[in-house]
Amino acid sequence: MASRNAPLIFGGSASQKFTRAICRELKIKPGRCESRHYSEGNTFVRVLENVRGRDVFFVQSLSYPVNDHLVEILFYIDAFKRASARSVTAVIPFFSYGKGDKKDEPRVSIRARVCADCLEAAGVDRLVTMDLHAPQIQGFFRVPVDHLYALPVIAARFKRRINKNWVVVAPDVGATGMANAYARVLGAKTVIAEKTRQDLRENAVVKRIIGNVSGKNALIVDDFTISGGTLIATARRLKLEKAGDIFAAVAHGVLTKGCAARLTASPIKKLVITDTLEHRFEPLPPMVSVASAAPLFAKALRRIHNQTSVSALFEV
Amino acid sequence: MASRNAPLIFGGSASQKFTRAICRELKIKPGRCESRHYSEGNTFVRVLENVRGRDVFFVQSLSYPVNDHLVEILFYIDAFKRASARSVTAVIPFFSYGKGDKKDEPRVSIRARVCADCLEAAGVDRLVTMDLHAPQIQGFFRVPVDHLYALPVIAARFKRRINKNWVVVAPDVGATGMANAYARVLGAKTVIAEKTRQDLRENAVVKRIIGNVSGKNALIVDDFTISGGTLIATARRLKLEKAGDIFAAVAHGVLTKGCAARLTASPIKKLVITDTLEHRFEPLPPMVSVASAAPLFAKALRRIHNQTSVSALFEV
Amino acid sequence: MASRNAPLIFGGSASQKFTRAICRELKIKPGRCESRHYSEGNTFVRVLENVRGRDVFFVQSLSYPVNDHLVEILFYIDAFKRASARSVTAVIPFFSYGKGDKKDEPRVSIRARVCADCLEAAGVDRLVTMDLHAPQIQGFFRVPVDHLYALPVIAARFKRRINKNWVVVAPDVGATGMANAYARVLGAKTVIAEKTRQDLRENAVVKRIIGNVSGKNALIVDDFTISGGTLIATARRLKLEKAGDIFAAVAHGVLTKGCAARLTASPIKKLVITDTLEHRFEPLPPMVSVASAAPLFAKALRRIHNQTSVSALFEV
Amino acid sequence: MASRNAPLIFGGSASQKFTRAICRELKIKPGRCESRHYSEGNTFVRVLENVRGRDVFFVQSLSYPVNDHLVEILFYIDAFKRASARSVTAVIPFFSYGKGDKKDEPRVSIRARVCADCLEAAGVDRLVTMDLHAPQIQGFFRVPVDHLYALPVIAARFKRRINKNWVVVAPDVGATGMANAYARVLGAKTVIAEKTRQDLRENAVVKRIIGNVSGKNALIVDDFTISGGTLIATARRLKLEKAGDIFAAVAHGVLTKGCAARLTASPIKKLVITDTLEHRFEPLPPMVSVASAAPLFAKALRRIHNQTSVSALFEV
Amino acid sequence: MASRNAPLIFGGSASQKFTRAICRELKIKPGRCESRHYSEGNTFVRVLENVRGRDVFFVQSLSYPVNDHLVEILFYIDAFKRASARSVTAVIPFFSYGKGDKKDEPRVSIRARVCADCLEAAGVDRLVTMDLHAPQIQGFFRVPVDHLYALPVIAARFKRRINKNWVVVAPDVGATGMANAYARVLGAKTVIAEKTRQDLRENAVVKRIIGNVSGKNALIVDDFTISGGTLIATARRLKLEKAGDIFAAVAHGVLTKGCAARLTASPIKKLVITDTLEHRFEPLPPMVSVASAAPLFAKALRRIHNQTSVSALFEV
Amino acid sequence: MASRNAPLIFGGSASQKFTRAICRELKIKPGRCESRHYSEGNTFVRVLENVRGRDVFFVQSLSYPVNDHLVEILFYIDAFKRASARSVTAVIPFFSYGKGDKKDEPRVSIRARVCADCLEAAGVDRLVTMDLHAPQIQGFFRVPVDHLYALPVIAARFKRRINKNWVVVAPDVGATGMANAYARVLGAKTVIAEKTRQDLRENAVVKRIIGNVSGKNALIVDDFTISGGTLIATARRLKLEKAGDIFAAVAHGVLTKGCAARLTASPIKKLVITDTLEHRFEPLPPMVSVASAAPLFAKALRRIHNQTSVSALFEV
Repeated sequence: MASRNAPLIFGGSASQKFTRAICRELKIKPGRCESRHYSEGNTFVRVLENVRGRDVFFVQSLSYPVNDHLVEILFYIDAFKRASARSVTAVIPFFSYGKGDKKDEPRVSIRARVCADCLEAAGVDRLVTMDLHAPQIQGFFRVPVDHLYALPVIAARFKRRINKNWVVVAPDVGATGMANAYARVLGAKTVIAEKTRQDLRENAVVKRIIGNVSGKNALIVDDFTISGGTLIATARRLKLEKAGDIFAAVAHGVLTKGCAARLTASPIKKLVITDTLEHRFEPLPPMVSVASAAPLFAKALRRIHNQTSVSALFEV
Repeated sequence: MASRNAPLIFGGSASQKFTRAICRELKIKPGRCESRHYSEGNTFVRVLENVRGRDVFFVQSLSYPVNDHLVEILFYIDAFKRASARSVTAVIPFFSYGKGDKKDEPRVSIRARVCADCLEAAGVDRLVTMDLHAPQIQGFFRVPVDHLYALPVIAARFKRRINKNWVVVAPDVGATGMANAYARVLGAKTVIAEKTRQDLRENAVVKRIIGNVSGKNALIVDDFTISGGTLIATARRLKLEKAGDIFAAVAHGVLTKGCAARLTASPIKKLVITDTLEHRFEPLPPMVSVASAAPLFAKALRRIHNQTSVSALFEV
Repeated sequence: MASRNAPLIFGGSASQKFTRAICRELKIKPGRCESRHYSEGNTFVRVLENVRGRDVFFVQSLSYPVNDHLVEILFYIDAFKRASARSVTAVIPFFSYGKGDKKDEPRVSIRARVCADCLEAAGVDRLVTMDLHAPQIQGFFRVPVDHLYALPVIAARFKRRINKNWVVVAPDVGATGMANAYARVLGAKTVIAEKTRQDLRENAVVKRIIGNVSGKNALIVDDFTISGGTLIATARRLKLEKAGDIFAAVAHGVLTKGCAARLTASPIKKLVITDTLEHRFEPLPPMVSVASAAPLFAKALRRIHNQTSVSALFEV
Repeated sequence: MASRNAPLIFGGSASQKFTRAICRELKIKPGRCESRHYSEGNTFVRVLENVRGRDVFFVQSLSYPVNDHLVEILFYIDAFKRASARSVTAVIPFFSYGKGDKKDEPRVSIRARVCADCLEAAGVDRLVTMDLHAPQIQGFFRVPVDHLYALPVIAARFKRRINKNWVVVAPDVGATGMANAYARVLGAKTVIAEKTRQDLRENAVVKRIIGNVSGKNALIVDDFTISGGTLIATARRLKLEKAGDIFAAVAHGVLTKGCAARLTASPIKKLVITDTLEHRFEPLPPMVSVASAAPLFAKALRRIHNQTSVSALFEV
Repeated sequence: MASRNAPLIFGGSASQKFTRAICRELKIKPGRCESRHYSEGNTFVRVLENVRGRDVFFVQSLSYPVNDHLVEILFYIDAFKRASARSVTAVIPFFSYGKGDKKDEPRVSIRARVCADCLEAAGVDRLVTMDLHAPQIQGFFRVPVDHLYALPVIAARFKRRINKNWVVVAPDVGATGMANAYARVLGAKTVIAEKTRQDLRENAVVKRIIGNVSGKNALIVDDFTISGGTLIATARRLKLEKAGDIFAAVAHGVLTKGCAARLTASPIKKLVITDTLEHRFEPLPPMVSVASAAPLFAKALRRIHNQTSVSALFEV
Repeated sequence: MASRNAPLIFGGSASQKFTRAICRELKIKPGRCESRHYSEGNTFVRVLENVRGRDVFFVQSLSYPVNDHLVEILFYIDAFKRASARSVTAVIPFFSYGKGDKKDEPRVSIRARVCADCLEAAGVDRLVTMDLHAPQIQGFFRVPVDHLYALPVIAARFKRRINKNWVVVAPDVGATGMANAYARVLGAKTVIAEKTRQDLRENAVVKRIIGNVSGKNALIVDDFTISGGTLIATARRLKLEKAGDIFAAVAHGVLTKGCAARLTASPIKKLVITDTLEHRFEPLPPMVSVASAAPLFAKALRRIHNQTSVSALFEV
């Protein structure tokens, strides 16, 4: 997979390691390019090899600093298109503005739609992403979206351990579908933590656990965690309800400053995240374990390039 | 100017003071809105008053951190449009990506066009800006652009001092037109510093001064300065050529860290900048003086709102 | 409100009564137009009065036959725009394709986005709708969407009856937010019916009721019902859990053939719907009661036309 | 023609037979997909095989119920594009809204333009159609249109029979060009029936026959007939003018209810139609004979796929 | 009609007189602007007064040299929009590329659609034109088109003269509808000249006159004439059929070089044209008489500006 | 390079010779097409061979009459796209409206942006051009632009002659970058002629020569000349400054009427132009020599078609 016909995969400044890992899987070299974020705040990008008529994949998560990485992606897409790439696929493993922004409050922006429109204005031809917080935002794009799931990557870590006596925990009602999917694959049952938020960014309070967890081990699953707050609150409530060992898994682990200590002090024995985010606000504590999503992305990109089904990757 | 029919002027997080200054001139209150830049990197905006059917002006310079402010502008435009504003004018006093990006090197992005396309995708109806580095980028927009000049603001500071024995200095050949405009207004002559750059971001070297400066006071003018490098190099060269007192003036003073000391140590006696940029990497040294462009912007916005000519503001 | 400056409100063939009811509230006459659906299947529309420079509101639910009414709306929007209306607002009380179409199955269409794109291609300037199944689809539109809620209309019918001993029932976890909103207004508690679907269009099975309902009266709330299946299954389960009297309320009552008998035979004492749908597959049974949403829409259209806040209508 | 490189041809619910006939000609299997029109009026579509990177042809006439079939086409185009088809060609043998809608009356919609815009908004890359009522509507599309003619299909049925003593009859002046084309191929002369319509949908009255038909056999040709009215009125007038045997041929035979009896009782001995429409409002009477246009479409699709000239199909 | 709220009407280099005539009717002064067509071939335009927030009408026929005038219109639209006009209406009395370009021959351009797309790309908000050759091309535009008819202007010249013994002559079958409209207004009958063209630009041959003209005076009507060829050929044929006096009338008289002599030598006694075209290839011969369409356009522009019905102008 | 896979190169009426020269280099035949500019001013184009699925290059300079050639290009692009070409590249060697139109005067059009929008509206996929007056206008296009430089073509003519004792002259400060590039390749030094223009189209006055030219031979370089005015004024000034032999070179030689005599009488010994312009207002005088840019364009088109780097053509 390295001929003229091979895909060209470039990595932005937020996803250097992840891009190399994907390329290793595909036995190709990453494309050469350079990104500069100058001290006065400007971003500048340059592609360092010929891309005429090629199918280009540009890999970059919307990790911290999110807007710098978003703008960098836009500039790269433009550079590739003006350099006559045949197509440009934005591979954005973590799409930070991936919420639906339901507009249940007045006069806010629907941020994911703005991002979608800007990516399309810059000339993107396709999006590959993983575990969007609101899968409906695929409809914010006119271009095709390949939506991957971290489920097989994470489930592989738990498969041997988990059995019918475990429960998979949805940390809020919105996560029920995802929890059911994990439960189905792992052969466990689902319970739901009903959450309340008094205010927009306040810590969540877990009102109750719907389902019986007494004496059972529990795996809390979610698409992402920023500060670990919801996971920890859920874990505490599970303990109150006499659950056994508690584990957690999220596709995207942002883990802001202070998180490591809080997680370590929590009832969660192990948190599994994937490697979609490279920026670390602080070193990961030992209780966090990283499963690589790069092989999954490599498979997906190969299928996209070979024009075989991507959804088949997730058939059970 | 505060009725139902009045314009609504909102200021983003980069231009709070500048917006208040404009509103003071117009005797109206700034619109209420809130911008949040969260620690994990996301930006969130909310408009706090009804804008249905109103002509909204949103004021924000692309100051440091540039991309956060750019994305904030995009989200605000979207929020205003979805809240049914009749029109949204982006007032971006300093348009950081305002270079033409001539693509004289291959495979780079034309960044200002990307910005223009994103602003238009978000729904902007008009741009008001000042002293674009490359005025041609007005053509990157489909919407009307009102391009203001800092010239009258800055010239007012020098008018009494300057006479025929002064020279206005263009720090490179590209700035000749601008220097001529200042010279015309101030009744001085123009000289040109011919600059060379070995490399993209390296410090410029002044090859020669075209024109006689011996014994004359000099005013170096430019659209913006980041580190002061070009101004200082030009000033030194002018001293070599036996110029008298040396002054400098730029519309947009970015002035990154370390700049204060270098400027203070330079042969420049006084640098005049405007208040289009509020972010300060370090305190301004005493030799920098700030002239407010807010009255100019207030006049321009009033003319736009009243549908009278903006270009008339700059007729001599 | 009948001068040259008044809004012009036209009703399509699916919403003749509803349009007249709105106009009665606003004390204006509906605009004159004619819609023909010919026997060979073509649709033809004609506007019968001058609309130059006017703000036109075109009212039509996507009731049965859904696609005829969708296409009729598209033709009317085009006719109004070509006849030089200043703006055209599509008022679609029931937006039948209002699901997010999350694409959790491969190779399906995101139908609401297709509808949004077609409405925008035809020239629509704004959408007014009520109780979208997935509020996120506001993000499928670039034009502003005013999203109304049937809650005040329906709650008015129950306010005197309901107290703390009642429960509001979300018929599935997705409806929890809506049920909480009703509960807050009515001063009751929320319980959740957890539903399973074996297959896409199969009847739902209620797995369990989350929360205590024994001895309490219950109000099941939802955005719409097609065949009444979910409401009835929920009601039966509530009875098993020893609930007292059971009521139901939905914004949009499609009520296909056979529904009347099934509802009458069910434990539901009274079902309240609104008048957003005029097509009746069969006569309504006595246990169904209709609350008019026309006054709410009239208020919203007046506010849109007067450019005052619409969200204020729903502040508690 | 069945390899990876072969075209993929899918048929919608209105054109199942016609699609199979085309595929038989091309010796390929139709693509697998399912269309559902639910009893409450919604349409749902699903593609059942991988289409990544493939050239997809979707075949569906706008037959009764027209709008359901139009919306179904839009949903399929969207589904194919989101499933990453390389291109989607809409093959719409009968384009029901194919009139120019000249807007000689005020405040009507230009329906074919609305259809064109919706098809393009959904993502169509090309249209293949036959005998548009107003060929000018090709200009309503930005994408290429391949416009086929039923002439060779129908003329083949008459070639042996017709000679210089026959006339080809244009049933109104607008059909003169078409009639001339048939006459040229069949070696006959053209006469014109001048029609008047008192009102929009009223039956036409034939004012006069321009040209001599006395003692001559006649073939009336048109692009489509809905109720047979124009054909029958023309035939009667021809009989008054002492024509011999009378035949008729149209590309698209809609033939609404009651048509069979009226045609059988008319002076027309035989009406030839093609198989572009599968919906039958009632059984075809024996005097109607169906010539298949499927081989013609098969040839056209093969040429489009092989990138050879389609217009060459119609060179005489 | 000269206040701030008045329309601003500008005339391009092709329609200076016509614009002044319209303005005289409306009692306003034409807007000031300048157009230059340089000797090396470039076109340059400049607007000489403030147009912010104004409704601008730009008047220019596509007369010889057609493409210079088309490009001039595009540049003016852009200049007006960038100068912040609220709306720009292109008033193109003679739309030279107004044919449908049916694409009945392969691989040609649909020129009117290209013109429509360019006008819309430049930012036009509305088109006002008269007697399009193919009225269907209104559907090539997304913006509203106000289509005027020269009929009342021309008919006024013939009203006293014409009675039931006259015939109105359609010079080909395509003009039948137009001829009928004249006949209805003038109280005459219609006859049709059936034309053949051997080749694309060859002179037409009149095959026959459909209807009796013997002893009757005749008025030939058409939308435009370039060389007078069709009119003269029709007139000659009418003479052969023993018609009495022959008159002709067209909305747009291009009248290329040599035309004057040919018309004077022809059986046509008088040709009436309107003043939509100012370029004269040679002086008009005495038998050509010009009726001004300026009052009609003035009325239409006033109605557009006052937002009253334009179609009402043509109700009989 | 003549198989099915070969590019198809068509030449418009302005660039017949240039197209043949390119094709000769590539050993292919030009595509067959015909362009007609009728005496009444209309333009008509027709493609005479099948282009389905082919990569089409259409070659035409914007030479006199500029607007006819611009419109011809638009019609050809439309014809190619509707005839199903896979891609259409406009090869416009001289892009006459290639100035930035900086809008430093109010209420003018940004003409190059209008041209870009029209080309894109017509469906162009790429632009190839040479020596744009303002390279920034690449940003006016969304499609990729391949910008070639005449430098290697022209430099080849001077290479043997020029040495360190020569100067390359920029005829105004804006041309400094270009002059530096020539100087670098030719091993000479750069001097700058500072020009003033009193008025828009008035003859320029050379204020001074920046740099020493006494006793040196000089080569004045520019992107284009219309009347030769700037070149001659610069040459005269150089003579005043005691320069030796004076040569000039421009990429695009428009050379309007009267130019031949003026150039011949000037101090310029030899003017080298390329063959991008075929229209000659008068015969070229002996002192003008034409270097063919066709081999350069042939190389560029081959590289575009083979998807290898075009920028590599200009690496020194």
